[in-house]
Amino acid sequence: MPAEFTPSPLFERVERARRRKPVIRDSHITLAHGSGGKAMRELIEGLFVEKLRNPLLEKMEDQAVFEVPSAGRSGTRLALTTDSYVVDPIFFPGGDIGKLAVCGTVNDLAMAGARPLYLSAGFILEEGFFVDDLRRVVDSMREAATEAGVEIITGDTKVVPRGSADKLFINTSGVGVLDHPVNISASRARPGDVVIVSGTLGDHGTTVMIARGELELETGIQSDTAPLHSLVAEMVDEALKRQALEDIRCLRDPTRGGVATTLNEIALAAEVCIRIEEARIPVREEVKGACELLGLDPLYVANEGKLVAIVSPALAEPLLERMRLHRYGREACLVGQVESTPAGIVVMATGFGGTRIVDMLVGEQLPRIC
Amino acid sequence: MPAEFTPSPLFERVERARRRKPVIRDSHITLAHGSGGKAMRELIEGLFVEKLRNPLLEKMEDQAVFEVPSAGRSGTRLALTTDSYVVDPIFFPGGDIGKLAVCGTVNDLAMAGARPLYLSAGFILEEGFFVDDLRRVVDSMREAATEAGVEIITGDTKVVPRGSADKLFINTSGVGVLDHPVNISASRARPGDVVIVSGTLGDHGTTVMIARGELELETGIQSDTAPLHSLVAEMVDEALKRQALEDIRCLRDPTRGGVATTLNEIALAAEVCIRIEEARIPVREEVKGACELLGLDPLYVANEGKLVAIVSPALAEPLLERMRLHRYGREACLVGQVESTPAGIVVMATGFGGTRIVDMLVGEQLPRIC
Repeated sequence: MPAEFTPSPLFERVERARRRKPVIRDSHITLAHGSGGKAMRELIEGLFVEKLRNPLLEKMEDQAVFEVPSAGRSGTRLALTTDSYVVDPIFFPGGDIGKLAVCGTVNDLAMAGARPLYLSAGFILEEGFFVDDLRRVVDSMREAATEAGVEIITGDTKVVPRGSADKLFINTSGVGVLDHPVNISASRARPGDVVIVSGTLGDHGTTVMIARGELELETGIQSDTAPLHSLVAEMVDEALKRQALEDIRCLRDPTRGGVATTLNEIALAAEVCIRIEEARIPVREEVKGACELLGLDPLYVANEGKLVAIVSPALAEPLLERMRLHRYGREACLVGQVESTPAGIVVMATGFGGTRIVDMLVGEQLPRIC
Repeated sequence: MPAEFTPSPLFERVERARRRKPVIRDSHITLAHGSGGKAMRELIEGLFVEKLRNPLLEKMEDQAVFEVPSAGRSGTRLALTTDSYVVDPIFFPGGDIGKLAVCGTVNDLAMAGARPLYLSAGFILEEGFFVDDLRRVVDSMREAATEAGVEIITGDTKVVPRGSADKLFINTSGVGVLDHPVNISASRARPGDVVIVSGTLGDHGTTVMIARGELELETGIQSDTAPLHSLVAEMVDEALKRQALEDIRCLRDPTRGGVATTLNEIALAAEVCIRIEEARIPVREEVKGACELLGLDPLYVANEGKLVAIVSPALAEPLLERMRLHRYGREACLVGQVESTPAGIVVMATGFGGTRIVDMLVGEQLPRIC
């Protein structure tokens, strides 16, 4: 890692701006409000959290952990999460909307350290949608649920007239149980911690963009859509073995907005600086090439089978070794570290020896990517 | 109640048809697949349940009840449910899509005898939707959640390009806890039981149809959208007091497809005949009039603040008295009874002394009613 970084007055200005309470200035919803980036954060903090205010929602994690009320004894901790899937096209190399809907919700539970138990599935179908396509999607959901060891136990079906929705939207919500006293939260990142990613970045988003046919590209790129609960279980087991459960500070799956946005959320929640090194960021050559053609930055592109982990420096090496034994962690690597200042900011040491701010995604890079 | 009913050969034919395993014959999704009626049942049983098969899903209740795994002791029973809301228009007299989304999911939990605890909320927004309208909707959600004593603890926001969705769809999923050893299920209705409805029928669906402006009607009709958890809690309490918890056999909220469809589902699940009396069905005069103009049958029109209860004859009178003390049960009344044959069929004694089959809804009466 390069020498200690000295913040300039510019950083201080950015830092102050970051601490301002988000407000929505727009009168209309734009695609940026669903991007995973800055505008979405404003909508969530400035409207949803502001109006629905409660301690669990205010944590703004991708899931909420609550204790099951249980007469006169300490209860079981459960996690609840929800996600709607509107990906376009619904079928793409490496997956489809059904596999995505199951894996995405399984992953949101896993990122709290929860063992996924049960899912619900809500379908919004456009009149005229092919029943055979629905069969294919539901087959994928079953396969993904089997791999993830979860059951889809309740559902809902709505049909809207042609033109009132595009083909098929799926909501999956999920419940998982926390088997261990983990304490995983974006706010727990602290100076000295290290940043790990579980594999190559940008595969999912790039695949979907190519599948959309906006560029006629022939590549072998596939979506990385995968359930990460068993990788997380191995990581928790490794920490348990070393009596270092507290050393797993934060887990996040970098979906919309990519790793850049996820790291910014962590930096803001924990009031720390996250410093990554460009040279260490794992990106497949084909993805790099396709991103250049599509005008995308892989750091901002959605992943659906990867995680970011912030862990103590002591746990990092044994954890990486353990992760690399798992099929979804083979290319796990250390990409950066947590520092104290400038708080709330992500910086990247570039290949040319410089340092630049890696901001949250501004505007909408990729609509309907998940 | 009229004299014993003797099934004709026609009934036997209907009875046989009812026992056939549902299959989907259509190649495309039609509005009927979202109607709550026969086609939806075929889609659910013939595709979703068929492919995702597991004991909880196969019960086909509006929620699934599971036990929280808990080391070495009998666990807590929880209910999980999900519903997507696509109502058009999103604002209507007596409520809006936000109030509906909270109450509908609260009610699905309540119908299992569960105390609603936590909800998730997933928003699919159309690009260009007014932020002020979203504010209004989320305000309604907060009010409804406060009344229902639940918290919205996790959420998701997706935005799709203009034309890919119509304004706003909301999914709410919910978790509730079963505080008492209730045993509530459609399959428990048995001959001799009675059928109770908690109030007037058809208010919600009729209101939405009028609000859609297809007829220029000036009426005072309002949607009945309301959370029914506390009414159910009172009913369970009454049964507990009388040591008759088992006497509450089945609770359902008759939403899409109305009371007719709900009763058909119960008749099929329990393999009983349900016999209702037209003269006892409570329908507001204005709703009756509007339904005549709109060509609707109030028995098939959606309700969002009413329940159907199948209970033992012994519990019926004290339960009705208790229900009538509650603001959402003031007009509760007994509308019919459960008989043994013809199994799987709902019949109605009409005003003219005749008897007719009340079939499941065929086709789509009211698209986007909830």
